[in-house]
Amino acid sequence: MRLTRYFIPTVKEVPSEAECASHQLMIRAGMIRKVAAGVYDLLPLGLRAIRNVEQVVREEMNRAGGLETFLPSMIPAELWAETGRWQFYGKELLRIKDRHDHEFCYGPTHEEVMTDIVRREVKSYKQLPLTLYQIQTKFRDEIRPRFGMMRAREFMMKDAYSFHVDEDDAATGYERMFKAYEAVFKRAGLKFRAVEADTGNIGGNSSHEFMVLADTGEDTIVSCPACSYASNVEKADVPSPAPYAAATPDPMSEVATPEQRTIDEVSAFLKRPPDSFVKTLIYTLDGKEQVCVLVRGDHEVNEHKLKRILDATTLELAAPEAVQKISGAQPGFVGPQGLKVRILADQAVRGIANGVTGANRDGYHVIGVNEGRDFKVTAYHDLRNVKPGDRCPRCQKADLEFHKGIEVGHVFRLGMKYSKAMRAVYLDKNGKEQVIVMGTYGIGIGRVAAAAIEQSHDANGIIWPWGLAPFQIAVLPLNVAKPDIADAAAKVEEELETEGYTVLHDDRDERAGFKFNDADLVGYPIQVIVGDKGLKNGEVELKIRKTGERLNVKLADLKEKLRETAAMLAAG
Amino acid sequence: MRLTRYFIPTVKEVPSEAECASHQLMIRAGMIRKVAAGVYDLLPLGLRAIRNVEQVVREEMNRAGGLETFLPSMIPAELWAETGRWQFYGKELLRIKDRHDHEFCYGPTHEEVMTDIVRREVKSYKQLPLTLYQIQTKFRDEIRPRFGMMRAREFMMKDAYSFHVDEDDAATGYERMFKAYEAVFKRAGLKFRAVEADTGNIGGNSSHEFMVLADTGEDTIVSCPACSYASNVEKADVPSPAPYAAATPDPMSEVATPEQRTIDEVSAFLKRPPDSFVKTLIYTLDGKEQVCVLVRGDHEVNEHKLKRILDATTLELAAPEAVQKISGAQPGFVGPQGLKVRILADQAVRGIANGVTGANRDGYHVIGVNEGRDFKVTAYHDLRNVKPGDRCPRCQKADLEFHKGIEVGHVFRLGMKYSKAMRAVYLDKNGKEQVIVMGTYGIGIGRVAAAAIEQSHDANGIIWPWGLAPFQIAVLPLNVAKPDIADAAAKVEEELETEGYTVLHDDRDERAGFKFNDADLVGYPIQVIVGDKGLKNGEVELKIRKTGERLNVKLADLKEKLRETAAMLAAG
Repeated sequence: MRLTRYFIPTVKEVPSEAECASHQLMIRAGMIRKVAAGVYDLLPLGLRAIRNVEQVVREEMNRAGGLETFLPSMIPAELWAETGRWQFYGKELLRIKDRHDHEFCYGPTHEEVMTDIVRREVKSYKQLPLTLYQIQTKFRDEIRPRFGMMRAREFMMKDAYSFHVDEDDAATGYERMFKAYEAVFKRAGLKFRAVEADTGNIGGNSSHEFMVLADTGEDTIVSCPACSYASNVEKADVPSPAPYAAATPDPMSEVATPEQRTIDEVSAFLKRPPDSFVKTLIYTLDGKEQVCVLVRGDHEVNEHKLKRILDATTLELAAPEAVQKISGAQPGFVGPQGLKVRILADQAVRGIANGVTGANRDGYHVIGVNEGRDFKVTAYHDLRNVKPGDRCPRCQKADLEFHKGIEVGHVFRLGMKYSKAMRAVYLDKNGKEQVIVMGTYGIGIGRVAAAAIEQSHDANGIIWPWGLAPFQIAVLPLNVAKPDIADAAAKVEEELETEGYTVLHDDRDERAGFKFNDADLVGYPIQVIVGDKGLKNGEVELKIRKTGERLNVKLADLKEKLRETAAMLAAG
Repeated sequence: MRLTRYFIPTVKEVPSEAECASHQLMIRAGMIRKVAAGVYDLLPLGLRAIRNVEQVVREEMNRAGGLETFLPSMIPAELWAETGRWQFYGKELLRIKDRHDHEFCYGPTHEEVMTDIVRREVKSYKQLPLTLYQIQTKFRDEIRPRFGMMRAREFMMKDAYSFHVDEDDAATGYERMFKAYEAVFKRAGLKFRAVEADTGNIGGNSSHEFMVLADTGEDTIVSCPACSYASNVEKADVPSPAPYAAATPDPMSEVATPEQRTIDEVSAFLKRPPDSFVKTLIYTLDGKEQVCVLVRGDHEVNEHKLKRILDATTLELAAPEAVQKISGAQPGFVGPQGLKVRILADQAVRGIANGVTGANRDGYHVIGVNEGRDFKVTAYHDLRNVKPGDRCPRCQKADLEFHKGIEVGHVFRLGMKYSKAMRAVYLDKNGKEQVIVMGTYGIGIGRVAAAAIEQSHDANGIIWPWGLAPFQIAVLPLNVAKPDIADAAAKVEEELETEGYTVLHDDRDERAGFKFNDADLVGYPIQVIVGDKGLKNGEVELKIRKTGERLNVKLADLKEKLRETAAMLAAG
């Protein structure tokens, strides 16, 4: 492809709207343009990268027995009402009324639509297992879309759904999909890790996320250096703590802590360590009931765990007025003593002696607080986030390691959540009706491309993994005004395209430096530079973007050398 | 592909919801399922057919120099406001508010979004011409979606947009696109015709529609057997009629015509021929002004022509109350005499003598009506549809022929309609700012597949053109319980897939008749039937779906015979 017939509007300046490397570079390399918050045009180069991801995903899905479908983006409300998600999905669900005032949503995920197909068409165990997938545009009305393709509102996703006779077969299907995901991300040239994850809005029994490791990732994941345990912090278990040593309980007494609200402030003010504090939070559960949640002062509440334990559809920190009503104080001065609501506590709070907490009186805390004597806990659970220094909850042999990651895929064992609600059943060998067991499996196609850039770029631009590069090779004639250079470049372009490479020939009448900068920015894995000096010796220069390595290659040896180089780059 | 690992839920009964052959057959062949009015799931087989159309279109677009992009479906209202279409597009535009109450539409077409890209990124004549396209999901909120994929609300479309320095270059681009369209529909194996067409909601200077000829088509097209003229009836010109012979004007007089409203009723009642009538209609223009429109009693008003002449954004028959207010009578009894509104008349009304029309009094008509004496026309135009017996407006050498067609593509010369409104400009060779000239070009991907079925099916099912068939060859073992048959079928499947054919192997343990019916219904162009008797002679049976031809072929000759047959089918 000749650049003068193509369309790559590169940008020299770092766009002010872009907050992370992939967002900046996708704009600068002429891949995407913003249309509205979280809504982007894919320009030709951007689409090529996306299509490469798509193709790798499609091939691996097909290999794993998946059958491709294409479902509508407009989903009637009735289907979502059947599973209750129409009520509970919240504001991320874009709700739409058509000209006849019928309600629809722009599908953010398609469990209901796919289950509807299967309940209509599958009658017998003979038709199972069945794995259907699609690669399609989704919309999630994120409150704060950002980071370009990483957290867009409109985005392309591969979503697969598997249907099974029982949990055993569902486990086999999950395993097969898990392996297909590993193959996808490996072929995409990504460093990634599969971690245990929370099931969130989708629900189900268990799930794994596929995380691309990158410092700019929004997710924190932990892994154990001594065993295979790896988890999103949202999900990671905390082992039961050792019991507190016995201590002589002090009497409880009030101390004035004017304007000191946070643990850190009060800790500094009272000169008592944070781990002697009982952090007291009031949550509103499903918009009605208030519950009190306690964690130790040096710990953070894990709302994912809390939601799961409370079986909550929505859970949010209570409004100050509600806190005042329950405790008589403003947030920051609340303690569990005498509260007339359920009190859930993290297991580390059990047996805490002579602790500090809010006095339920504005401007005051209490010291000498003892669990059991001064407040009573309804139930103990693992309610906190893991933190550096925590042991692996599985093998308990080593401290957890922390990394940042970008979620690019998520696989779920759904059990019968959707099939029960929608009555997706089949007749077994004995003619008895059984509920279908399901799995669901997503990959953010655009996010894979963005994550590849986050993981692989430098100050000059993108460094595409071979498997995703929109063009694998750039042919760069140094001076197109000279016919011998232009002719040689055209010949190289044609030969390499015939060899099966995707080739971009920068035939613009521009300075060499300008072309080099553009080529580095766009990130073609290999550059073939055609210049006067080289041509005199029958040579071109080959530059490998990833290593910066340059070497002169005889035109006669070019194909052979590129085969080697391509194989090396493809291997990672 | 083995059918037991695939998903083709065929249906024996004709679905009651389906009104035309393609709709019925796409449901029965397990290609689509309805989710809501005009909103469909594409099941695996349906998607394969769609992807085949997509791929043919993509290849021809690329060959014509088009560059593929992918634009968002959610388009901010601001962009559409710039061209005025936000106000004027009407209820087919699905309007959506996001969580922040920002207004969007679900894009039914992308002129604004594409022009926005070009006005931001194109600065110089050196970057032109530029043709950008996409293959993407659109939504049009049809008031009465029907005929399945033919008139769906959510549908897949290829839309291309070309940008040029001037009208000459735009003409060249239009010509290139026109040829690409011919190549697409030819490769798809369709009988089609390109006709002149109205520009409708898109606007612009001129346009052609590509019509697949089928008796079930919703469009009527005319063509001249003596010259190359072909047009949609919406657009077809009517040659000026010969003037009426002079006649002695009778006095105008009222006659009672109780309950007789239509031309046919009054004609029969008064025993006067319809061509002596002046049909008088009151229209409301752009929601405010009323205009009176006259055509001869045996003619039909062409609202497309009327809209263009009046430069109307909206045009509808006036409500009975408005008609009453202007004429003093109900619709059906209105005449042009004494009306205080603009009167537009078809050219055939000029000089009409001793005609019949409404009396502007309920239950009465007038006879002896003479143009000039009894009513005055503001302006004459060509305002009617052509009808059988009309001469070709171009060569006037033959009568027009009428056909039914399905619109599968539409190409437009837009001129500067969008580029002027949105200020898409470039600097010419002299550094002077010029407005970009545009073209736009659409193909309904799903509709091509549906039109292919309308054109090519029989009582047993679909007869796929070779180029669109979801699988080209079905392998049908007569009895899979017999290992030699099952093995032979598996071997044939593998060999033909290796040869590059798409193959569906019906390995179900079902009766032969059941499999034959399914194969005919789904419409694989070639069936390879593997049975006991044939195998004994080292033979299989080959059936060609289109002709019903059957022949026995030695296994050793199968590849060669299929090559011939495929070549024949591919040639149409």
